[in-house]
Amino acid sequence: MKIPLVAIPRLSQYARVLLESRHSDYISSDEISEIAGCTAAQVRKDLAYFGQFGTPSRGYKVEELKRSLSKILGTDREWNVALVGVGNLGSALLSYKGFAPNGFKIKCAFDNDLRKIGKNLEGVIVRDTSEMKRTLKAEGIRMAIVTVGAGSAQSVVNMLIKSGVTAILNFAPVKLNVARAITVLNIDLSIELERLAYFLSRTKKSKKS
Amino acid sequence: MKIPLVAIPRLSQYARVLLESRHSDYISSDEISEIAGCTAAQVRKDLAYFGQFGTPSRGYKVEELKRSLSKILGTDREWNVALVGVGNLGSALLSYKGFAPNGFKIKCAFDNDLRKIGKNLEGVIVRDTSEMKRTLKAEGIRMAIVTVGAGSAQSVVNMLIKSGVTAILNFAPVKLNVARAITVLNIDLSIELERLAYFLSRTKKSKKS
Repeated sequence: MKIPLVAIPRLSQYARVLLESRHSDYISSDEISEIAGCTAAQVRKDLAYFGQFGTPSRGYKVEELKRSLSKILGTDREWNVALVGVGNLGSALLSYKGFAPNGFKIKCAFDNDLRKIGKNLEGVIVRDTSEMKRTLKAEGIRMAIVTVGAGSAQSVVNMLIKSGVTAILNFAPVKLNVARAITVLNIDLSIELERLAYFLSRTKKSKKS
Repeated sequence: MKIPLVAIPRLSQYARVLLESRHSDYISSDEISEIAGCTAAQVRKDLAYFGQFGTPSRGYKVEELKRSLSKILGTDREWNVALVGVGNLGSALLSYKGFAPNGFKIKCAFDNDLRKIGKNLEGVIVRDTSEMKRTLKAEGIRMAIVTVGAGSAQSVVNMLIKSGVTAILNFAPVKLNVARAITVLNIDLSIELERLAYFLSRTKKSKKS
């Protein structure tokens, strides 16, 4: 089954629509699309990758679709996540309320600042970065969030990979070099603002002309 | 000129490569692509949307390409940004070092928590949300970051739009309803983790089979 990667965030969106839906039995692609903010045809196409979930007359069985999406997205289980870099952003993510309902738990946090090591933040003890390998191997953690500065991100990522991590969400504004088997998703917040700036510039120009 | 929206973040990436490059005169699409992490053909295709920047023998003129990308992305000027919701995430963004070098300045911050109003965070005074319209109109601010909870995001966005904002970066885990003329980019951090979970689940399955 060859699913385009761009479809994955949309499937996450559909799963959210279902969780918030008050429909107990069936939901139509029209209803999903209206809340998810895309076309009904897109919804039907995305869900068709995974087999026959719906019937043309009644729509999709809510509970069945929920279970299938969970299984596809890997959210039918809990994922323990490591966080490296307990600065402002790292602290914000430790208290971010959006992870837990989706099955993600930041289980351990690392920093090399002596003033932070040993602190309890949202139930997580901040540990010395030197303990990373032992801790992650012991916990079997394979997913990590990197919130260190650009200068130390690559060395942190190298350590994470040596500790058994294969999937990384990177907030450091730097391009990381990793082997093909490792998945890195880069979140660069100024790139998002640049997308907004692009839209605003274009609007301004079109208003002028 | 019809540029696919998915190309915009890549252009941001190329602009970063040029800023960090030590080449003073020319840079090839191969060199850009190696650092940006995509194919040289992709680089050439993306840059071709904006006209003829390079020569096949020598590559692209660094300074000319920098200027053109800045102009296209709207980063040839400073953008003042408003932030609403000074919780953990809002505070983290106020101290985020990645915005300023790219021309983005969080100029004002709003919250409705009396314990936060009046505080000075990173040189920005937190104001009462009720002052939003007056402040944003006076400053001519059209770009905003929303870091409030899911429950109040829609009403905050409505207020922002009434205050003249047309481009919004939304961190609240909720789908916002806005008019077509308004640009909203949603950052849902658990959706990013779900993409990682999808990759990890797939790896695990393929190892088993």
